[in-house]
Amino acid sequence: MKALVYQGPGKKQLEERPIPQIEAPTDAVVKIVKTTICGTDLHILKGDVPSCSQGRILGHEGVGVVEKTGAAVTTFHDGDRVLISCISACGKCTYCRRGMYSHCTTGGWILGNRIDGTQAEYVQIPHADTSLYPIPDGVDEEALVMLSDILPTGFECGVLNGKVEPGSTIAVVGAGPIGLATLLTAQFYSPAEIIMIDLDDNRLDVAKHFGATAIINAADGAAAGAVMNLTGGRGVDTAIEAVGVPATFVLCEDIVAPGGTIANVGVHGVKADLHLERLWSQNITITTRLVDTVTTPMLLRTVQAGKIDPKRLITHHFKLDHILDAYDTFGEAARTNALKVIIEA
Amino acid sequence: MKALVYQGPGKKQLEERPIPQIEAPTDAVVKIVKTTICGTDLHILKGDVPSCSQGRILGHEGVGVVEKTGAAVTTFHDGDRVLISCISACGKCTYCRRGMYSHCTTGGWILGNRIDGTQAEYVQIPHADTSLYPIPDGVDEEALVMLSDILPTGFECGVLNGKVEPGSTIAVVGAGPIGLATLLTAQFYSPAEIIMIDLDDNRLDVAKHFGATAIINAADGAAAGAVMNLTGGRGVDTAIEAVGVPATFVLCEDIVAPGGTIANVGVHGVKADLHLERLWSQNITITTRLVDTVTTPMLLRTVQAGKIDPKRLITHHFKLDHILDAYDTFGEAARTNALKVIIEA
Amino acid sequence: MKALVYQGPGKKQLEERPIPQIEAPTDAVVKIVKTTICGTDLHILKGDVPSCSQGRILGHEGVGVVEKTGAAVTTFHDGDRVLISCISACGKCTYCRRGMYSHCTTGGWILGNRIDGTQAEYVQIPHADTSLYPIPDGVDEEALVMLSDILPTGFECGVLNGKVEPGSTIAVVGAGPIGLATLLTAQFYSPAEIIMIDLDDNRLDVAKHFGATAIINAADGAAAGAVMNLTGGRGVDTAIEAVGVPATFVLCEDIVAPGGTIANVGVHGVKADLHLERLWSQNITITTRLVDTVTTPMLLRTVQAGKIDPKRLITHHFKLDHILDAYDTFGEAARTNALKVIIEA
Amino acid sequence: MKALVYQGPGKKQLEERPIPQIEAPTDAVVKIVKTTICGTDLHILKGDVPSCSQGRILGHEGVGVVEKTGAAVTTFHDGDRVLISCISACGKCTYCRRGMYSHCTTGGWILGNRIDGTQAEYVQIPHADTSLYPIPDGVDEEALVMLSDILPTGFECGVLNGKVEPGSTIAVVGAGPIGLATLLTAQFYSPAEIIMIDLDDNRLDVAKHFGATAIINAADGAAAGAVMNLTGGRGVDTAIEAVGVPATFVLCEDIVAPGGTIANVGVHGVKADLHLERLWSQNITITTRLVDTVTTPMLLRTVQAGKIDPKRLITHHFKLDHILDAYDTFGEAARTNALKVIIEA
Repeated sequence: MKALVYQGPGKKQLEERPIPQIEAPTDAVVKIVKTTICGTDLHILKGDVPSCSQGRILGHEGVGVVEKTGAAVTTFHDGDRVLISCISACGKCTYCRRGMYSHCTTGGWILGNRIDGTQAEYVQIPHADTSLYPIPDGVDEEALVMLSDILPTGFECGVLNGKVEPGSTIAVVGAGPIGLATLLTAQFYSPAEIIMIDLDDNRLDVAKHFGATAIINAADGAAAGAVMNLTGGRGVDTAIEAVGVPATFVLCEDIVAPGGTIANVGVHGVKADLHLERLWSQNITITTRLVDTVTTPMLLRTVQAGKIDPKRLITHHFKLDHILDAYDTFGEAARTNALKVIIEA
Repeated sequence: MKALVYQGPGKKQLEERPIPQIEAPTDAVVKIVKTTICGTDLHILKGDVPSCSQGRILGHEGVGVVEKTGAAVTTFHDGDRVLISCISACGKCTYCRRGMYSHCTTGGWILGNRIDGTQAEYVQIPHADTSLYPIPDGVDEEALVMLSDILPTGFECGVLNGKVEPGSTIAVVGAGPIGLATLLTAQFYSPAEIIMIDLDDNRLDVAKHFGATAIINAADGAAAGAVMNLTGGRGVDTAIEAVGVPATFVLCEDIVAPGGTIANVGVHGVKADLHLERLWSQNITITTRLVDTVTTPMLLRTVQAGKIDPKRLITHHFKLDHILDAYDTFGEAARTNALKVIIEA
Repeated sequence: MKALVYQGPGKKQLEERPIPQIEAPTDAVVKIVKTTICGTDLHILKGDVPSCSQGRILGHEGVGVVEKTGAAVTTFHDGDRVLISCISACGKCTYCRRGMYSHCTTGGWILGNRIDGTQAEYVQIPHADTSLYPIPDGVDEEALVMLSDILPTGFECGVLNGKVEPGSTIAVVGAGPIGLATLLTAQFYSPAEIIMIDLDDNRLDVAKHFGATAIINAADGAAAGAVMNLTGGRGVDTAIEAVGVPATFVLCEDIVAPGGTIANVGVHGVKADLHLERLWSQNITITTRLVDTVTTPMLLRTVQAGKIDPKRLITHHFKLDHILDAYDTFGEAARTNALKVIIEA
Repeated sequence: MKALVYQGPGKKQLEERPIPQIEAPTDAVVKIVKTTICGTDLHILKGDVPSCSQGRILGHEGVGVVEKTGAAVTTFHDGDRVLISCISACGKCTYCRRGMYSHCTTGGWILGNRIDGTQAEYVQIPHADTSLYPIPDGVDEEALVMLSDILPTGFECGVLNGKVEPGSTIAVVGAGPIGLATLLTAQFYSPAEIIMIDLDDNRLDVAKHFGATAIINAADGAAAGAVMNLTGGRGVDTAIEAVGVPATFVLCEDIVAPGGTIANVGVHGVKADLHLERLWSQNITITTRLVDTVTTPMLLRTVQAGKIDPKRLITHHFKLDHILDAYDTFGEAARTNALKVIIEA
């Protein structure tokens, strides 16, 4: 089969690989129908993810059709159409029982990282019963590719951890795909104000169309003051960090109101300053989270009910044969205005 | 009346002052029976608290007897014995309605800071109905002095924010008065392990007597490793910072388990490093809080029911005339082994 | 001034009464601009509310202008435009501190019940600082009349207690004004399915326009089966009782899914059967609540932000001089299709 | 092997049966070391549990040693000492993922009910990875028999659902084994008052030794009044029903304070009156629950830490050969003062 393979820092290649097989009785093999590229894949290609070794098939998102199942798989059968979660979960370790699938002792984020991933014609899925989701009849499968990772990430790490609620004021720092996914899912809770902050006017323009009530281009270094003006000097109830660098995290510290929450979504490579000399008395909460994908069934129901249209995040389409072009398009988002790209296997 | 007055950095004096009067209809004047000294009073004396100006009567803790009340005070009458909360709360601003008395727009921590305090024979209490608590018959008043500040602080900022629960593993970094108050109130929730960490062997010994299941002297710089050993490499569910310096906060980051909570109690003067490059994916929660004293009624009931003995925190007694000696004893705790000192007016 | 006065069971009259005055320092007198009639007013007129004695001015809803304030009122001043809460709250008793304003020991639902109410030209409001809300500039005052009682009731007793969440399935039994207010506010949380059940086709039709995803006329006695069909035999996550008779409460018991919640909104005059022989093992929660109006500020923000249009509940308008006609119209809703009627003072 | 077999209403017998085998890859076979008898076993024998057919081996509690495991079992190996949960959980259905193991679509309470149980020398355990718990070294195995059912039931259905908290006032109606298990686990949260209510003076005496702060013999029909006297007319924050008949449930309705919770633990055979005409406005919560045993790991830690001594519930010991005597002793508790009886296989 064809597969996009990581060849070490800066290198990737579309290769021929053997179709994966059932190994454990809880495995399934899934034929990929559609997959996508994540910002994390770009991190791997930069050499920033040491757990991912050379020779690994990339990708941790997608929808497909069950090809084979192990003897202990009871939920899925050959031919079932399935959504693949970016997080593999055994369902039985201490972390899985707490709903922290991200820290499953034999799973977590392993697809396209510690084991071969979804940017291929087939993928082996461990712990299939608790790592795949049945696709309901009549739901647009392409939309569901957004439920593998980006929507649960924005929703769980940003919206739920950020305790967004009706009438509240929130700011999302970063209007890239994950910030926009946060913006879309935040609206499930009817906040009164959603302030989107970014450096890219195109993305801010998209944010406006996606429901932002105010947008701020932070290029002038005056974003904190602008948020304070918008909120009558009070700050925001929820500040969501969706970039992953110290400056944007500190911006969240600057704009969070007393009693508010900073929900971190971004993947950070270095430490940030925590201004405890100011924040110790401000009754704030800071959360971090690797997505658990425990809300996937809930998100599936919101898609079915038309409460959210995940396809708004999709800007480009490619065939698997042209996945290198897809990487180029996605990697140069500032030029191409790409958000999420769909790759059809 | 006699009053302990802040005279600017490094200076204080027992002075004669006029007895305070009712100004607003919601005021009460309380005759002090017993008061105490807080670590924060020492901070003021160092000049670290700019909101406290020269000439201020210090002190924000105590029990007393209502002397006079304003026309709108309905809960208290002359002669009522009352517990004075360190936090003044109007009960009607946005923050008070959310239970965030600490951020009351016309109150908060103002006693012995922005207005005259309790280290005197009398004190004026604004918003009396929501800033005083009736002392139930038969309760030891001296024990209740610990409910003005130190017990609600340990309980709200450390134990409640830290989500301590039956069977959980917690560590408290700092075994001073506030760390020990946290230790005492944490036991309301029956955690399986309480690890106390400090640099002072005497305080650790007290911690052991107060219910710690393990103690660690961090002087060797190996406290994080010791906690990891004690927890089988997993870390603690709740790490409570009760010192207020960067090193102890970072120690909390080092020992918190995935899915765990860091609850900050300490008063910080400078920023700390937040190791997001490691913590972003660890599903942790960090909380800060200035005590709200919303749990004072709950704590009163636990004292009445004998679930906690706050007097264990009291090591020394002084008359108001000797309050300068009390400051000396409290200020040199490493030598005197002082925890809390009672001052009788 | 003119005032609508309860004259004992079955009798009411528009009378001339003296303008109320400030009595306690926490009182305000408010000149009524607009008020409305509540189903509870009809209960009083039937003689079902023994706490309301003959001679009482009815009404507990409305917007107005502050005419005078007592010496201890700090939030409001003469000329301020205000929303009157149906619940008076002292802000300082045990219940108020817990956010249970409905059980305030010197307040609760007293307006138009134990003290004179709002269906008059002026009203005296006790505990003014915590029982009135400032009307923000630019908000339609008529819409805000719906925030005195009906919207917080549907929201607090039905939606919040019912734990409505994104993607969930809910049923509201009763499509009268309060059921429709529940329907409107439930949509703050993006449930996937909202099933409205009533006996009146017109009200069900309104429900459909207000966002119901399914409607069921229960006249054939087969509503439970219809809900089960709609939910694939599973039942609903949240069943909200908005009528107040045994049959509709038992219907909620019949349709709630394992793990679900029954939130009671209706005012009941007699006991109901609780089928514990079936429900004991179903992990359900049942809640009751007299509205606390603690969400009034949140609801104000959702109205300001355009997340809800409360005016959709208003069907008729009358002058205070014609309030008897307003009662007729509201009392014969099946004929007049009345939901809420506005009375202009 | 020897096994206690249900022979239809009123009849049971110690029989020879074949040792069970592995059928599904997720099964384990466990050699029983100790088991016990539950009140539910008596219900079955009365013919009250239609799901349990004639020929069924009874029993759903116990500790043992793993004898064999299926190919997909990864957590346990031959020779492991294990605690058997009364609830079998697949860990992957919708209910298991929500922590509602009681409603597992292929599990729940099936042991000794729909499939053969633990009152035998061996038992087959389905979904072994998520239905067994490893026994930590050094823990008294006999104590752990109480963790199969009775302690998690009292804790989850009574204490957690009842939101017991420090300083609160609770009443437990019923001082049988399950009421006493509730009493023991309630103390994890340091309530100020625990009122135990029963008709049997011996059980009330035990309750007193187990930590009740007040006991009431309800034989005179005046229990509600007695609770009101004890609580200054306010009622209790939490009323826990641990009997399962209408009268005791209604007693809970009579004694719950405004804002309080009624947590049902009892197994009910008939409906009860719900006095909504009084409770609709009292802001109360009523919960029902079949135990989920999701707290078993937490309870194991509290036992290990010495926070609870479950052996206090054990009054008698028998060999499996004399299990009929054990049933007699347990069945005539009023005469024998039996709480839980241990049966050694």
